[in-house]
Parts: sequence; structure tokens; C-alpha cells
Amino acid sequence: MKVIKTISQMQLESEGIKHNNKTIAVVPTMGYLHDGHLSLIKKAKQTADYVITTIFVNPTQFGPNEDFSKYPRDFDRDYLLAESAGSDYIFFPDSKEMYPLPFFTSIIVSNVSEKFEGIFRPSHFQGVATVVVKLFNITKPNIAVFGQKDYQQTMVIRSLIRDLNFEIELIVVPTLRESDGLAMSSRNKYLSESERKKAGILFKAMEDVKTAIAKGECDRKMLNSYMHKKLREIKEIKIDYAACATSNSLEEPEFFLPGEEIVILIACFLGKTRLIDNSLMKIPGKLNQSNFVEGI
Amino acid sequence: MKVIKTISQMQLESEGIKHNNKTIAVVPTMGYLHDGHLSLIKKAKQTADYVITTIFVNPTQFGPNEDFSKYPRDFDRDYLLAESAGSDYIFFPDSKEMYPLPFFTSIIVSNVSEKFEGIFRPSHFQGVATVVVKLFNITKPNIAVFGQKDYQQTMVIRSLIRDLNFEIELIVVPTLRESDGLAMSSRNKYLSESERKKAGILFKAMEDVKTAIAKGECDRKMLNSYMHKKLREIKEIKIDYAACATSNSLEEPEFFLPGEEIVILIACFLGKTRLIDNSLMKIPGKLNQSNFVEGI
Repeated sequence: MKVIKTISQMQLESEGIKHNNKTIAVVPTMGYLHDGHLSLIKKAKQTADYVITTIFVNPTQFGPNEDFSKYPRDFDRDYLLAESAGSDYIFFPDSKEMYPLPFFTSIIVSNVSEKFEGIFRPSHFQGVATVVVKLFNITKPNIAVFGQKDYQQTMVIRSLIRDLNFEIELIVVPTLRESDGLAMSSRNKYLSESERKKAGILFKAMEDVKTAIAKGECDRKMLNSYMHKKLREIKEIKIDYAACATSNSLEEPEFFLPGEEIVILIACFLGKTRLIDNSLMKIPGKLNQSNFVEGI
Repeated sequence: MKVIKTISQMQLESEGIKHNNKTIAVVPTMGYLHDGHLSLIKKAKQTADYVITTIFVNPTQFGPNEDFSKYPRDFDRDYLLAESAGSDYIFFPDSKEMYPLPFFTSIIVSNVSEKFEGIFRPSHFQGVATVVVKLFNITKPNIAVFGQKDYQQTMVIRSLIRDLNFEIELIVVPTLRESDGLAMSSRNKYLSESERKKAGILFKAMEDVKTAIAKGECDRKMLNSYMHKKLREIKEIKIDYAACATSNSLEEPEFFLPGEEIVILIACFLGKTRLIDNSLMKIPGKLNQSNFVEGI
């Protein structure tokens, strides 16, 4: 596995690969890899000839009071893990390489960026979109693999690929979970032992919503209230949001329709650690014309 | 010369060219081609194997009260002119092809976008940057050729190429002028006969500044005042701005330094027609260390 630290060298390698009619899948990460990341790399390896894992803790997607400086980093460990999962390259630039001064350009994806995470992390998706476009132009992938855990991020990236006419296929890989349902995340390292024991509550809250949906509940506010109730069982939890929305546009109608796919979204602090999670589910029944009442 | 109207077909053609190790130069235009455009196409043909001229009157770079709907269009004439200048392709999409709904993404280039034109046309450069990134991803050029007449636009594009890591060389071609110095522009068509006779005043105003600089003037406000004075000789002129600034960052110091390159920028209405022009000039003398006074 090759480690590449400069943009020009990475572009040269990618050009070489494409020149030989081989395909590239990129797996953008901020490092401190866990099994969730490795599942992305393995998926990438199944779909393309070469896999480029990028490791860059992107400063522009952190807010001023967020955890940029203490975000966990361990390159040597990441190297071994990425190689074991089948990565052919690690692109590992430093901040000066990615953001030399002056730097004026940013990418804004409206709509999906402005809801849920976008409210609590106002410039987050702008930072994500900008670095992802840079990484696309640097690694020149045919395929980009992202985790479903950052659900809104995948929507932002799907929008920018479509709107800016990148010829890149987006693959979203389901979230890997610990045995108690906690979504794998580099940030789980921040949790104290006692917090870690309570962190499974996010998964349980989503399961409660799914049970209610399976029983026929489709009133959005009712569904949300089940989640809030479950999360509040842990007194150290501060909820940013715990909400159901349509999966394709994050709309929040009063009632979800039979056949509609929804996404259950949670972001909350457990102590000082911010956790996010999500789950997709289809409302039972068939979506048909009679569900649409004219004028509504 | 091939005319291509869909994004997917253009991407396929461009991929084919690059697959054969040939180079592409793109010349983005809004059509209604004149000799200025043709000089860009000719320059493009000298520098690359294939030239793609894009013709798209981009709605997102026009303000709400601007001339989008009446912007002149004549595809048949453009076809003949582009072919005569050596273009190999015309990419000629419609608005639905370029901006299918929903459309969420936009590119913002701060700093250079916020001055001069950016003040009078607040969302203009956002529209330009976004469509240019789309056109880059659609035509996949090695070289992009733009006219110096839209000076700030070339700065915006240089910034986004650099910041977003496009592997594209930007070539800026000097402005072509009519015999009285009027910069060639599709919008000159709007001028009445009597306005057309007066339109040479922009060039004369820039010449006055250059004469003053050659005589040793380097006081920015003085230089600007010469321009305003000359432009006001035509009573139908309403000046948006007529100003000197450093050519590389559009800064406006009290005095320009010897050896510094400046850009003279004008935007004004002559009747209902908005004209812009610019000219580059070096301040006489050598830039040396003693010009920089510590603390200033």
C-alpha cells in the first residue's frame, strides 16, 4: 500500500490508473479507523480495481467549539488497518497541502444542509462539501464510498455529485454497530466507561420508533415523542434532535404515508461526547394515488 | 464540428478524447459570438488538440433586473463563426439540462468576488463559479480559455481552479477592441447609434489614467478622479465604478508602489446598456525593499 502526501502525486497516480483503464474507489475518512471504516474499504475493493483511502481531519468541518484539536489520530494503526482491508493507497495530506493561503472557495449545498445537523453545526456541511469536491478532483474516483452513519452527509454528497456533474457513483454502506447497538464511531473513544454502558440507548430509542411504526403509528410527533421518552431514561443525555423525516428530502409532514421511506435521526450529547445515529424504515402498506388528497 | 446538447454525451466525447491521449481546451461563452470570442477559440486551438466551445446563456449569473431574457442569441451564426475559428465541438445545452430540479449546490469564491462587480451584481460570481465548475466536469478540459475583458471573472476562476484542485491551465486572452477602443462585447448590440459613438470614452478614460501613471502619478484617488472626469464628459453615462486596484488581489492602497501591476476597472451604464472594461499597467520603477515601510 502506498502512502501519498501531496496532491500532485495523488493526481499523477490516479491519472496513471485511469490511463490503464482501471477503476478507482475513494473512501474519504478522518482516520482513527474502526470496523465501520474497514467495511467501507472492503466494499470499495469489491467495486473497483483500486481503493484510495483518504485520511484527513478536515478543520473546516469543525465548528469553533468542537473537537478538532482533540479528534483522535493514529496513523500507524490506520495504515495497518487500511492495508488489511484491501486499500491500495492512503492519501494523507496535511492542512497546508489542502488549504494553502489564500483560500477563497467554498461549496454550499442548500436545503438538506440546513436541517437537523445543519442547525446544530452551521458551517459543517459547507466544510464537508468543499473538502469532498477537492478530494474528488485529487483522487479522480469512479466510485465514492461513504457510511450511512452520517446520513445527511450522504445526502449532501449525492446532491453535489448530481448538481456539479461529477461522473462518480455514490455507494452508501450500512452502519456497523457494537453488540448493544451503538453505531461505530471514532468519537466513541471519548466516552467514559459508565457513559459507554449507557450509549446503547440511541439504538433502543430508534427501535422503539420502529416498533411503533410496525404497529401502525404514522403520526410524526407521536413517533418523535417515543424517541425522546426513551432517550430521557438516561439523565446525562442532552438531545440536539431526535426526529423522523422523509428519507429522500428530510421533510416533516404531520403524518407519514403508507409505503413512504423515512429516516429516524438522532443527535445527542452523552456527557461531553456528541453522538449521532440514524435508521431507515418503510412505513407499512402501499403508497397509492388515494394517499394524495388534492390541494394538500 | 459536432453540436452536443446533453451532458452525458459531452462527457462521453471528452472521455474518448482523453483516452486517446489528446488534449482539450474549453472556451465557455454565452454565445452571440464576436471577434473577441473567436480570438479565444483560435488561442484554444493553438494550445490543445480539441476545442470545445460552450454556448449557454447562464440564468444564474444574471440578477433579477438584468438582461437575461433579452440577451442576444443566434445559434446558426454562432455555429458558422465557431467552426471558422477552429472549434471542434459546440456544447449547447438548455437550462433544463444544466439545472434540473431539484438543484441545491453553489460555489462561492470569497474576497475577489466581493469587490467592484460583486458589489453591483451581488450573486453574479456565484452563478459564474457554479456553472464553470459544471462545465469543467462536463467538458474535462486540460486548458480553459477566458477573455481578459471580464477581469474579475478570470480571478474568480483562477481561485476556484486552485482551491478545488482542478488540473486545468487557465489562459486569459487580451481584450479585442473596435477602432475607437470600445471593448468587443455581445452587449454592444444594445447601444443606439448615438450611444455607440460615445462608447469609446471608456477606453479614453483608461488611457488618461495610463498617461498620468507614466508621468509619475501613483496616488490612487487622483488616478480614479481622472477617470471619473473623463467619463463625465458624456452626460448619458452613469458610473458604477471606475477605479484602480492591485491586479493580483484588487487591493486599493492610498499609493501604488513602483513596479506594482495595477488593473484599471470600469463599469458604467451608457443609457440602458451596462458596459465594463479594464486594462493592466505596471507602475514605473522597480519594486524594492525600501518601498515597504515597517508597520504600514
